[in-house]
Amino acid sequence: MSKSFEEIKELIIQFREERDWKQFHRIKDLLLGLNIEVAELQELFLWKSDNEIQQIKKAEIENEIADIFIFLTYICDEFDIDLKTAINKKIELNKKKYPVEKSKGSNKKYNELKS
Amino acid sequence: MSKSFEEIKELIIQFREERDWKQFHRIKDLLLGLNIEVAELQELFLWKSDNEIQQIKKAEIENEIADIFIFLTYICDEFDIDLKTAINKKIELNKKKYPVEKSKGSNKKYNELKS
Amino acid sequence: MSKSFEEIKELIIQFREERDWKQFHRIKDLLLGLNIEVAELQELFLWKSDNEIQQIKKAEIENEIADIFIFLTYICDEFDIDLKTAINKKIELNKKKYPVEKSKGSNKKYNELKS
Amino acid sequence: MSKSFEEIKELIIQFREERDWKQFHRIKDLLLGLNIEVAELQELFLWKSDNEIQQIKKAEIENEIADIFIFLTYICDEFDIDLKTAINKKIELNKKKYPVEKSKGSNKKYNELKS
Repeated sequence: MSKSFEEIKELIIQFREERDWKQFHRIKDLLLGLNIEVAELQELFLWKSDNEIQQIKKAEIENEIADIFIFLTYICDEFDIDLKTAINKKIELNKKKYPVEKSKGSNKKYNELKS
Repeated sequence: MSKSFEEIKELIIQFREERDWKQFHRIKDLLLGLNIEVAELQELFLWKSDNEIQQIKKAEIENEIADIFIFLTYICDEFDIDLKTAINKKIELNKKKYPVEKSKGSNKKYNELKS
Repeated sequence: MSKSFEEIKELIIQFREERDWKQFHRIKDLLLGLNIEVAELQELFLWKSDNEIQQIKKAEIENEIADIFIFLTYICDEFDIDLKTAINKKIELNKKKYPVEKSKGSNKKYNELKS
Repeated sequence: MSKSFEEIKELIIQFREERDWKQFHRIKDLLLGLNIEVAELQELFLWKSDNEIQQIKKAEIENEIADIFIFLTYICDEFDIDLKTAINKKIELNKKKYPVEKSKGSNKKYNELKS
């Protein structure tokens, strides 16, 4: 169970290869699919109060989160993107855009932060 | 650079803690944010031909993919979801819903697969 | 200013024709574009408290709502759909799915309503 | 059948009032719902070739388009927005952002148009 990013990616891509599904995975379909999966996650929460949200089954949320990640992996595969590298770069970038002393406790976008 | 899922998650959550942003991360905002990030990824591709897509800078795609993953991580954190476990479970589920012999080379949803 | 649906549609389609943009409006791009416009509307509200939402400029909301409607009109045009007819049909359908006596004051989906 | 925007809006709002649903229509839920409806429209087209798209039933597309419009109407109602006015304003704005002589036959965003 202690799989790395690489092993998880391999699992997902192998699943697809066994089914010969790459032929359907044109980029604009993957982008639509990504949104469809996000909407399925959102639907679990729609109209619900905080109390009702507490009662959503964790397995249902896990299920939709996994679907989103699977689409993300397909898109990474398409452009030869290493997810870990992408995230590391982004965190470094965000550290510059949102320095702690300016952004702490603020919900402003970086271009609205006081200088 | 060979970080595990756990280390990446820790990096993302620590970034947030240092800025005290959890207070803004109500679940419905996280769900809206997830969709906004997906749209930013989609916007890179909008109206573009296959040729024009080739010219999109990889760094731009990486940047948006990372943002999506960051929101996914926040949502996982909210519900104490282990992403790896979620994906493993989902792949097992999908293997049952989409057996190779029925789904190979088909773009049908599982409930439309011939029995 | 008292324009009908037909006049508004004509205005939108004429704007496109003058710019010769139909060539870019492949259906999957229109569907991505629709989502991108929805995200732009959502972004106005992201992270905001009820108080902060009161301070959003009405013109900004109008602006994004109009963009969504414009994409909707393009898609209707693609499939020769009359929006008014579509809405009338849907309301009739919803009246059957959600009879007042069962659905009043309930946030349940029609397939979860008590019989 | 030749209903105006105002009559259609009234029909939608009246349907909601009869069911006493406004209490669930917090703005962030309406924004999530809007995306969920867009995703349902997108799902009709997912993975499909141009040929397969020809075979989608018009009634299904109408159905999803109507749902999107209904959510749009709820959001307009929330902020006292007149949809026609919003669209007229936007078209006027777009005429300035995308003058025919610069934008004809171009898929560029207004801020990328050659001056």
